[in-house]
Amino acid sequence: MNWISNSEILIVGLGLMGGSYAKALTRLGYRVAAIDRDPEAIAYALEHGIIQAGAADAMPSLIQGADAVIFALYPTAFKEWIASYQHLLKPGALLTDVTGVKACVVYDIQAMLRNDVEFIAAHPMAGREVSGVQNADDRIFLNANYIVTPTEANSPEAIEWCKSLGRLLGFRRISTLSPEEHDEMIGFVSQLTHCIAVALMTCNDNRHLADYTGDSFRDLTRISRINEKMWSELFLLNKTELLEQMDRFIGELSAFRSMLEQDDREGLMQKMRLSTERRSYFDQ
Amino acid sequence: MNWISNSEILIVGLGLMGGSYAKALTRLGYRVAAIDRDPEAIAYALEHGIIQAGAADAMPSLIQGADAVIFALYPTAFKEWIASYQHLLKPGALLTDVTGVKACVVYDIQAMLRNDVEFIAAHPMAGREVSGVQNADDRIFLNANYIVTPTEANSPEAIEWCKSLGRLLGFRRISTLSPEEHDEMIGFVSQLTHCIAVALMTCNDNRHLADYTGDSFRDLTRISRINEKMWSELFLLNKTELLEQMDRFIGELSAFRSMLEQDDREGLMQKMRLSTERRSYFDQ
Repeated sequence: MNWISNSEILIVGLGLMGGSYAKALTRLGYRVAAIDRDPEAIAYALEHGIIQAGAADAMPSLIQGADAVIFALYPTAFKEWIASYQHLLKPGALLTDVTGVKACVVYDIQAMLRNDVEFIAAHPMAGREVSGVQNADDRIFLNANYIVTPTEANSPEAIEWCKSLGRLLGFRRISTLSPEEHDEMIGFVSQLTHCIAVALMTCNDNRHLADYTGDSFRDLTRISRINEKMWSELFLLNKTELLEQMDRFIGELSAFRSMLEQDDREGLMQKMRLSTERRSYFDQ
Repeated sequence: MNWISNSEILIVGLGLMGGSYAKALTRLGYRVAAIDRDPEAIAYALEHGIIQAGAADAMPSLIQGADAVIFALYPTAFKEWIASYQHLLKPGALLTDVTGVKACVVYDIQAMLRNDVEFIAAHPMAGREVSGVQNADDRIFLNANYIVTPTEANSPEAIEWCKSLGRLLGFRRISTLSPEEHDEMIGFVSQLTHCIAVALMTCNDNRHLADYTGDSFRDLTRISRINEKMWSELFLLNKTELLEQMDRFIGELSAFRSMLEQDDREGLMQKMRLSTERRSYFDQ
């Protein structure tokens, strides 16, 4: 299946990400349907023209009619859905997702999936500090990264199809990683940073400090407004990798602390020169 | 002295902050002179109309002519300058500064200062990731906090004068703290966050990750491009307070890590709910 204009696309899970996908695809002229267990999310999306059809149950006709299905569920719910409803999928349908962890999801789904449909996983690295279809916004894709994580079970055609979706949505950069490489990377650049932001906010009853914070503190804690159900699930599903990243970071910060304690100004300056040099690559 | 239009203002130390003060005060119509040991900084500022007079030495006439002197030096250099040149100050001159640590500077300066001049300390909580008068920008003050840190040695008139300067420069919020309160606050909201950003950048040879970072990682590491000479001095001068803040943060992050290790999903979610609640106060 290509991204031809008469394709019917089903989005399963109509929260912030599902809703943002729906907005973009509707804007691009596709026929977009959605399933979400929350009837209010479906009603809102229908009312606002974000989807053309919707159901609060796994409505067979919507599932059977879809050429492409995009899963925007939490990982556990995603697996349960496949187990329960995959018999309804149209033969030849292509499936993709937005899940933030990969190794613990992709292989299980592919192993249980029917042979006449294909699941190709992707992680759109975009989001907001708020949730729900009411906050959906397809501009969040524009400056963001989109990562496809194929396995040996995937066909070159499905991989290309999945990349095309990222291009359609307007992502700045499309790349390919193995599920394991993805999880290591995400443990560092996304999960560890969220843990740090949360700990910075909870380590100190700092409400009275709101008056004095500059951009630094605000930047470091922006992501501490966090959907606790989703992120606790993502952290636990990537636990081994995240623990390793946390240990590495805590070790490094403790080493910096020791230099300070020992008045090792040259050591502190070396670390700062290294961070300055490395950070400069991120601004190129 | 009030901020009347024929005042002559001397800025000692013409880097990013001194230069940004100079830009703002020149724009407001004051006569602004500067002293910096780097003749190129002075030449640049004269050429670009940022100052009306300048010297690469402690030119007596410029010091003697100033009704107000703004010190934008590193803390140690600031004390040395006062010891060497305070005999040149005009009787009745008002002195202020931009130094990022207070208790270790304010009392020493006030103790050594002549009785016919007054030093009232302030900390403009603004900055950029680049340094030098070439990067000076007086728009950095507009959304920022300005903190005056008076002691018993200060007169109500000087405190009011110093606050007026913050208002003139366009700061969003002007407040007053004791030097000790300031140092505790700054240890948390500014110094700890810079240590975290540096450690996040140095804990992992992550150059290849630049392609995959989203806004979270960029936000948390923006301030890891850092002037190592200035910040190592500020960290060491506020060592006791900063060590305490680092210990508190490392302890909190380690507790979060243990919850993850023990699959304590409810504990993780509680922390995230707390961080979400607290962070919301910062967005009001």
